[in-house]
Amino acid sequence: MKIGILGGGQLGRMLIQEALKYDDEWFTLDPAKDAPCHAISNFTEGNFDDFDTVLNFGKGKDVVSIEIEHVNVDALYELRECGVKVIPSPEIIQIIQQKILQKEFYLKHDIPSPEFQIIQNTSEANFPLPFVQKMNAGGYDGKGVQVIRTEEDLKKLWNVPSVLESLVDIEKELSVIVAINENGETKTFPVTEMVADPKLNLLDFNICPAHISEHVEQQIQQIVKKFIKAANSPGLFAIELFLDKKDEVWVNETAPRLHNSGHQTQEGNTNSQFEQLYRVLKNLPLADTDAFGFSGMLNLVGEENFSGKVKYEGLDEVLKLPKTYVHLYGKTATKPGRKMGHINILANSRKELLEKLIHVKSLVKVVSGH
Amino acid sequence: MKIGILGGGQLGRMLIQEALKYDDEWFTLDPAKDAPCHAISNFTEGNFDDFDTVLNFGKGKDVVSIEIEHVNVDALYELRECGVKVIPSPEIIQIIQQKILQKEFYLKHDIPSPEFQIIQNTSEANFPLPFVQKMNAGGYDGKGVQVIRTEEDLKKLWNVPSVLESLVDIEKELSVIVAINENGETKTFPVTEMVADPKLNLLDFNICPAHISEHVEQQIQQIVKKFIKAANSPGLFAIELFLDKKDEVWVNETAPRLHNSGHQTQEGNTNSQFEQLYRVLKNLPLADTDAFGFSGMLNLVGEENFSGKVKYEGLDEVLKLPKTYVHLYGKTATKPGRKMGHINILANSRKELLEKLIHVKSLVKVVSGH
Repeated sequence: MKIGILGGGQLGRMLIQEALKYDDEWFTLDPAKDAPCHAISNFTEGNFDDFDTVLNFGKGKDVVSIEIEHVNVDALYELRECGVKVIPSPEIIQIIQQKILQKEFYLKHDIPSPEFQIIQNTSEANFPLPFVQKMNAGGYDGKGVQVIRTEEDLKKLWNVPSVLESLVDIEKELSVIVAINENGETKTFPVTEMVADPKLNLLDFNICPAHISEHVEQQIQQIVKKFIKAANSPGLFAIELFLDKKDEVWVNETAPRLHNSGHQTQEGNTNSQFEQLYRVLKNLPLADTDAFGFSGMLNLVGEENFSGKVKYEGLDEVLKLPKTYVHLYGKTATKPGRKMGHINILANSRKELLEKLIHVKSLVKVVSGH
Repeated sequence: MKIGILGGGQLGRMLIQEALKYDDEWFTLDPAKDAPCHAISNFTEGNFDDFDTVLNFGKGKDVVSIEIEHVNVDALYELRECGVKVIPSPEIIQIIQQKILQKEFYLKHDIPSPEFQIIQNTSEANFPLPFVQKMNAGGYDGKGVQVIRTEEDLKKLWNVPSVLESLVDIEKELSVIVAINENGETKTFPVTEMVADPKLNLLDFNICPAHISEHVEQQIQQIVKKFIKAANSPGLFAIELFLDKKDEVWVNETAPRLHNSGHQTQEGNTNSQFEQLYRVLKNLPLADTDAFGFSGMLNLVGEENFSGKVKYEGLDEVLKLPKTYVHLYGKTATKPGRKMGHINILANSRKELLEKLIHVKSLVKVVSGH
């Protein structure tokens, strides 16, 4: 089968890597000619947010999917008209692309998400402090999001269509990944804790399974159920959640694609999120997702003050550790905050996992050199 | 690092698939232009048994290795002279290529292997019946090997340089895979049982760990120790063993490369044989090889009477089974006995594993069609 992916980054690379155990032809589209997918797929250099480029790329494929949500949805609608299978649906991608539509979607389908106000410009802002401003379009990896705490902060408000959202008193950030195939079969991965690095605002650790109460687990399963019904689309989705200090769960946002919060499924679960998306794309029976025990992930992110040819310090020490798995993304140049790879770790207890994660983090540094 | 592999078949493909989680450039050489590696590496169409082809392919690489042993060793010696790292050493490849040298190697290093006579032609044959004739060169996947049981059979003797080897009264066929890096570090995978299909003489099931006594395990570890010392080369080696009915272990032969008997390590062990060879090639710390439990493998081999475009019957049923992993090799055409893929299975007991293997085998068929 000819499978086309919009985006040629690490998510696409790990998808293709996993799916090399099946017989398919893989095609990727990315503006960077040295994108992680370029050497392992039929690669097209081009912008996935350009109508003609996406249309031409998608024509003749059996199925087109995404590994980034900022793609030209008009071209996806058009491709679907032409008989190309598009997963997930252009409708759900469009809703998720725009924070305003996304919030209205949660409201409409009774999916709990923080209180909000929609503004077209700053003059409309009328929302109790403190709050979070999320730009309607273009946000990614923490960009396009800012916290407004004080009257003074209000001067910083971006004068663009946005969502103003009440600040949740966060106990934990959680994620749940759910897969839906065309037959309507669904499977959910175990809930994962995401521990963020406050400086980079990029995910830092994952811990799976999350340490949560039965009450919290039930709320999450309710959200999953409502989301599946509301999304009405095959696909693999990562629902990012806030758990507040009163043990209540709120949806932060949803990614209609593979997600950093699922990377530890590569070795931590009977099947990975990558295997699962592959099965969704081909409408195969969904894979079992049981956890083998405790698993965690640590992002390898470019250190501050280093740019250029990447050098990984300390990897040899990491490779000596049992049940520790290094995943690099084939990116030659590092820059501060760039995701260059990750390390998955298996353990027999949460305590052992945390110790290993902290130990490994102390060993390795992503710098530049030579 | 630039890594060149002689051979572009499924072993190379699964090696590259595994190693996509690191940053390297992969190059493969194979006479078949649609070889399994062609789409995922820098592929050269050419014969790996031709001196000039191998020399030109190897030049400029940091390391050259093999996924098939029938390669031009003279070119490997030359490449090593030119400063290219060659793993395993040309010496050990040459010994293993030639059954006569291989038997002399075992004898010299006190590694138990069945009694034998070396002949240059049939007139020299003087060995007690029954015995096995193994051609000195060119044997592969059961080819170049025949059993001579009777006086009548003696007429079938191939008139070529050969080893005549006494027939072991086989209780079980076993395999042990050992890795050696340039620092001299070694790691061994758990001993695996190989259950052969008598018709095709191709490996059919693997069962890991093997059900063997402590006495047998000790003999095998002694063999491994002697082999490592005698081989005197970095590499990954599969030592194929006979266990006789008196609980004695004999070396059948050794492969200086990745091996079918190690495929279940992909999901069955903390790290796979593919990860391990990668680490050998880069002289990295060797990976832990612990088994997660019981694991097995079933070869997907082209059915008799079917040739042409491959069609896998029953795969959808297999994909519904938990802890069951389909691996196809990206070969478009099937023919009788051709290895097209394999299925790995995890289980909590040997009994459960055997039941699952037999069940899966009954579900799936490799035929041709459309």
